Amino acid sequence: MRLRRRAGTMEALLQQPDLYVEDAKAFKGRWHEFFGNKQPLHVELGMGKGRFISGMCARHPEWNFIGIDMKEELLMQASDKARAAWQEVAQLAPPNLALTLFNIEYVLDLFEQGEVSRIYLNFSDPWPKRRHARRRLTHPEFLQKYASILRPDGEIHLKTDGAGLFEFSLNSFCESGYGLRNISLNLHKEGPHPDHIMTEYEAKFHDRGQPIYRCEAYLNSKRL
Amino acid sequence: MRLRRRAGTMEALLQQPDLYVEDAKAFKGRWHEFFGNKQPLHVELGMGKGRFISGMCARHPEWNFIGIDMKEELLMQASDKARAAWQEVAQLAPPNLALTLFNIEYVLDLFEQGEVSRIYLNFSDPWPKRRHARRRLTHPEFLQKYASILRPDGEIHLKTDGAGLFEFSLNSFCESGYGLRNISLNLHKEGPHPDHIMTEYEAKFHDRGQPIYRCEAYLNSKRL
Repeated sequence: MRLRRRAGTMEALLQQPDLYVEDAKAFKGRWHEFFGNKQPLHVELGMGKGRFISGMCARHPEWNFIGIDMKEELLMQASDKARAAWQEVAQLAPPNLALTLFNIEYVLDLFEQGEVSRIYLNFSDPWPKRRHARRRLTHPEFLQKYASILRPDGEIHLKTDGAGLFEFSLNSFCESGYGLRNISLNLHKEGPHPDHIMTEYEAKFHDRGQPIYRCEAYLNSKRL
Repeated sequence: MRLRRRAGTMEALLQQPDLYVEDAKAFKGRWHEFFGNKQPLHVELGMGKGRFISGMCARHPEWNFIGIDMKEELLMQASDKARAAWQEVAQLAPPNLALTLFNIEYVLDLFEQGEVSRIYLNFSDPWPKRRHARRRLTHPEFLQKYASILRPDGEIHLKTDGAGLFEFSLNSFCESGYGLRNISLNLHKEGPHPDHIMTEYEAKFHDRGQPIYRCEAYLNSKRL
């Protein structure tokens, strides 16, 4: 995603400690202290502009959400969206959302073993070249990290428009000992699916008539 | 598949006891007697016109093949193809092939527990209407039967052009406790795959540029 860099973005983020977490590693194993409660932790890896996570945190006040991305400008957009989405509900900033700037490769520095209930991977970079396969967020090396931070009943929910990435991901999940369910090769076949909040990408691809692929992976304790 | 009925087809089949098995149930648990050896048994359920199975039995003389379908005319075409394919190799009728007219629903009457090494499902009828789901050859009720006749290290190899059937099958395999591997959403993306013999349907769909879906399912003894 190409983004125009804007001066002062980091300063603006730092001014909203209710949403932006500067030193996220400090909360490893104690995210419940940030949120002030022990609600299940849902993490979106590569949150982009935040349409999905801001919709989710308004729809599910009973869960806590953490959105992670690598670009300040994305966090800023996500923050604006989340406040707007929440205001429709409660006239306040969402109390169940944290945003942080972080390299997903080091996700083990952010969460304690079994701390996360669900991971969302929405329209992750497909890295189509074979020599970049290890950068795909569903490469077995990543899946092993996720397995470590997920609760035993934890799940990964994946959506993508990329047939290549989806194929790679299904095989990678299977290889890595995850179970799969609710596999869909065309999520919105019968119109936008009411249970699934669309990301920015998703709405665009859906409008073009391109299929959206989706699956849920779960830890299979008998196999791992 | 619509087929013109031809008078005398059954008579023609009965004249070739080297390929056509009239009373297939009699061989349940003792197919090695039909073949005269104990080579691994590969079964194609819904063999159609026989291009795949006749290619396979010529390419793999070390395996025994059984082709099953419901229409006499298809068995006749498969028989002709198999003889032609084998003659290229050995000037003989294929000694590792049996064809039989049978309703797959009763597959448990054909094979003993653990008698089959591999099942092929190629371009099975998609039965797209939800109320016909139980007729799909990857419905969990069928998968349970297959699990019973397969060896513990047995496999199911599935190919289809139907995204709907493929999606249903992936979910059905997962639900039924099978493991999956070599999932492909576009088998011939880089040209016809040399390891995979094309069926009649497959060649047609490939020529039209439509993707062929494929996966391998295996019994996961730890989960079943």
